[in-house]
Amino acid sequence: MDEKVQKVLDYIEEHKEEYLELLLRFCRQPSIAATGEGIEKMAGMVVDELKKLGVEPTVLETGGSPFIYGEIKGEVDRTFGFYDHYDVQPVDPIDEWITPPYSADIRDGVIYARGVADNKDGLVTRLCAVDAWQKVHGKLPLNVKFCFEGEEESGSPHLESVAKAHPEMIQCDGYVWEGGHREKGGPAEITMGVKGLLYVELHAKVSEKDAHSMYAAIMPSAVWHLVEALNTLRDKTGKILIDGFYDGIQPISQAELDALKTDVFSEEDTRKNILGIENFINDEHGEDLLKRLYYQPTCNICGITAGYQGEGSKTVLPGKASCKIDFRLVPGQEPDRILKLLRQHLDKHGFADIEIKCHSGCPAFRSDPNSPFCKAIVRTMETLFHEQPCIQCTSGGTSPMYVFCKEANIPAAMFGASSKNANIHSPNEHLAVDAFYDMIRITATMMHEFARQE
Amino acid sequence: MDEKVQKVLDYIEEHKEEYLELLLRFCRQPSIAATGEGIEKMAGMVVDELKKLGVEPTVLETGGSPFIYGEIKGEVDRTFGFYDHYDVQPVDPIDEWITPPYSADIRDGVIYARGVADNKDGLVTRLCAVDAWQKVHGKLPLNVKFCFEGEEESGSPHLESVAKAHPEMIQCDGYVWEGGHREKGGPAEITMGVKGLLYVELHAKVSEKDAHSMYAAIMPSAVWHLVEALNTLRDKTGKILIDGFYDGIQPISQAELDALKTDVFSEEDTRKNILGIENFINDEHGEDLLKRLYYQPTCNICGITAGYQGEGSKTVLPGKASCKIDFRLVPGQEPDRILKLLRQHLDKHGFADIEIKCHSGCPAFRSDPNSPFCKAIVRTMETLFHEQPCIQCTSGGTSPMYVFCKEANIPAAMFGASSKNANIHSPNEHLAVDAFYDMIRITATMMHEFARQE
Repeated sequence: MDEKVQKVLDYIEEHKEEYLELLLRFCRQPSIAATGEGIEKMAGMVVDELKKLGVEPTVLETGGSPFIYGEIKGEVDRTFGFYDHYDVQPVDPIDEWITPPYSADIRDGVIYARGVADNKDGLVTRLCAVDAWQKVHGKLPLNVKFCFEGEEESGSPHLESVAKAHPEMIQCDGYVWEGGHREKGGPAEITMGVKGLLYVELHAKVSEKDAHSMYAAIMPSAVWHLVEALNTLRDKTGKILIDGFYDGIQPISQAELDALKTDVFSEEDTRKNILGIENFINDEHGEDLLKRLYYQPTCNICGITAGYQGEGSKTVLPGKASCKIDFRLVPGQEPDRILKLLRQHLDKHGFADIEIKCHSGCPAFRSDPNSPFCKAIVRTMETLFHEQPCIQCTSGGTSPMYVFCKEANIPAAMFGASSKNANIHSPNEHLAVDAFYDMIRITATMMHEFARQE
Repeated sequence: MDEKVQKVLDYIEEHKEEYLELLLRFCRQPSIAATGEGIEKMAGMVVDELKKLGVEPTVLETGGSPFIYGEIKGEVDRTFGFYDHYDVQPVDPIDEWITPPYSADIRDGVIYARGVADNKDGLVTRLCAVDAWQKVHGKLPLNVKFCFEGEEESGSPHLESVAKAHPEMIQCDGYVWEGGHREKGGPAEITMGVKGLLYVELHAKVSEKDAHSMYAAIMPSAVWHLVEALNTLRDKTGKILIDGFYDGIQPISQAELDALKTDVFSEEDTRKNILGIENFINDEHGEDLLKRLYYQPTCNICGITAGYQGEGSKTVLPGKASCKIDFRLVPGQEPDRILKLLRQHLDKHGFADIEIKCHSGCPAFRSDPNSPFCKAIVRTMETLFHEQPCIQCTSGGTSPMYVFCKEANIPAAMFGASSKNANIHSPNEHLAVDAFYDMIRITATMMHEFARQE
């Protein structure tokens, strides 16, 4: 371990209590994107902490939660962007929490709090690592930019306008992106890209009112119509049947195939514990399974609703039916184009009357794994944990990486020390105290590694 | 008009207020089958009224609401069965009622009350007509049997056991069955049969818990599975694709075809006002439309549910999905056989894992339109209203007629004076006061006509 880094790591070790206290304070402040509860106070706390680091933050009013920006110059002219968010998901169902979601109760070395693993841990980690560097060495090894938004849990509706209005703010040499896992005893996982997303609702309607089901013989059914429409979208293997849907998809590169071999994906744990299923789709295994997870677009029904859904029987013919669908997209699939293809598909198959409501769309993004940034992240993990990290060229999930990274082709990576079973978005969200300290150490080491990377 | 009948009609005219008071009193007593609210009191009131007619009622405990039976001997040995029910539907949504559901408020000659058109009107009508005959002539023209149940709105779960345990009670020469319409200014409608019903729920499950939709690429989807299964059940024209489903269906007879010509079904009123749709299924019209309504079985989705159904977007892969289906059946289709065919169909098409929960099943029933009973009913309407009634050999709806009528092949008919737009089962259920008096007159006249029918 480089001596300069070691001193910072020692400082972190000596100030563990202080850093933990900051995390707990952040977790005790509600900041729910969906309702706006506590957002203003939380933003104020973030601004105050940045000021303590010597930053004069810029607070951009977005029309939603403010976007908070700050920068610090370092020894070399290379720049880290820290992308994190200070908003959290709602706490419902509240009665399933063992301790209140904002109490930040610590039990057996684990902190339980809404937001502790998504993503107040990440945000506080950056602040603590920078603080430790400054306290020990005065100047950071490289420039850093803090880009903290407050609407990630609502789909980052204003992030694109921020990026377009302030290209100078978002420009950097690599984004340390929120999120990331390292299971206890396992290698660090580094994720260098994300899938895109198109989220739509389909609405079928034949009448404003429901009818007595004796009329089923002569009255068209909105729910049958919707079911028929859905059935034209996908075959039983999950293949999407929309003309042109797979056009232009970037093929899997050799680097990506190589990365699959480092993946620590546990089929058994995912199947049994995370998903609770008997078999994966089409009974896939091994590399084929991972190829599907990372490189295949999907068409998923998030929810469907029509008519009577209570106990017992009600003989009713519903006048309306609707469903929510998310398409996970891969590079080469622009959400706008997929939306157009979906409309064309429905029109062509006799479902021109089915309304499409588009909720959001975001393209996929993949970083160049050979960029200095990505290499520095990998070396950080090797240095700290003395083993080869698991490299995922993309996540199966989605994040607005594209918005910040695509225009200037900036690499980004997600990594961290929290577990996949951290209950993010669910009751009893949690993070091990030790994982939090690891995340500070990773961030501090990373600054050094990227500063010296050729 | 026969003089004997005219005297009874005159008596009814003179005692209108008294009879109306009885209906209002019955309507002011809650008697909700689903919750049991007021059932006991209501049953007591029915028993008391029967006693006033000189009947010593038999009250059968069924395990649910009591079944109330009574009989009166008349001048000739021919017997009417009066089938009615003293239970009603729940009053929800309560805030849509203009006046409280049990206030029986009268506005502009219309009574508003839960149950006033389904079926306290029918039940009280029988009591009043019998009372008027007895007051005027002492003895009724024929025997009557009162068969009053208290669970019709819950699907008559104990009616079959009553029928099996007491064949002597249910034996008669024709059933005056609850329900029936006569629109203002239109002819009387007589319905001589009903469709059958099979009500099932389909349950698809891949996991106890919902998953993050990033896993859609590798995790099977319960809701896609259900949608695929549903799509094998029916084609776009409404034709059911279950092997053997149409086997053994009784063809439409000439008498039935002839009856179609008397039907007063208004395409425009049904389409616009009752259903609120733009076109009937397959854009059918005229006789073809009526043939579908009365003589085609259906497979209707009453409701479907899975995953997230709230506002906005949630990227979730639901672990479970379910739907409720009602099959309306025609003579020749036993519900048990259809249920077996459905199971076989799902198994054969790769959906053996989809669970079927059967709620209820009841076969169709059609009366012989040439029976003395049916002829007497037709003549009653001609006599009272001086025009040919509309004859429907079957309803598109379902009623447990089969249970009482099939074994002994007893004809049954539904007729009345309430409107199709009476909001039965809905807020502001109503009945015109004049329609109630007409229904008493019809019942009284009918006894005379059936007694003398050859």
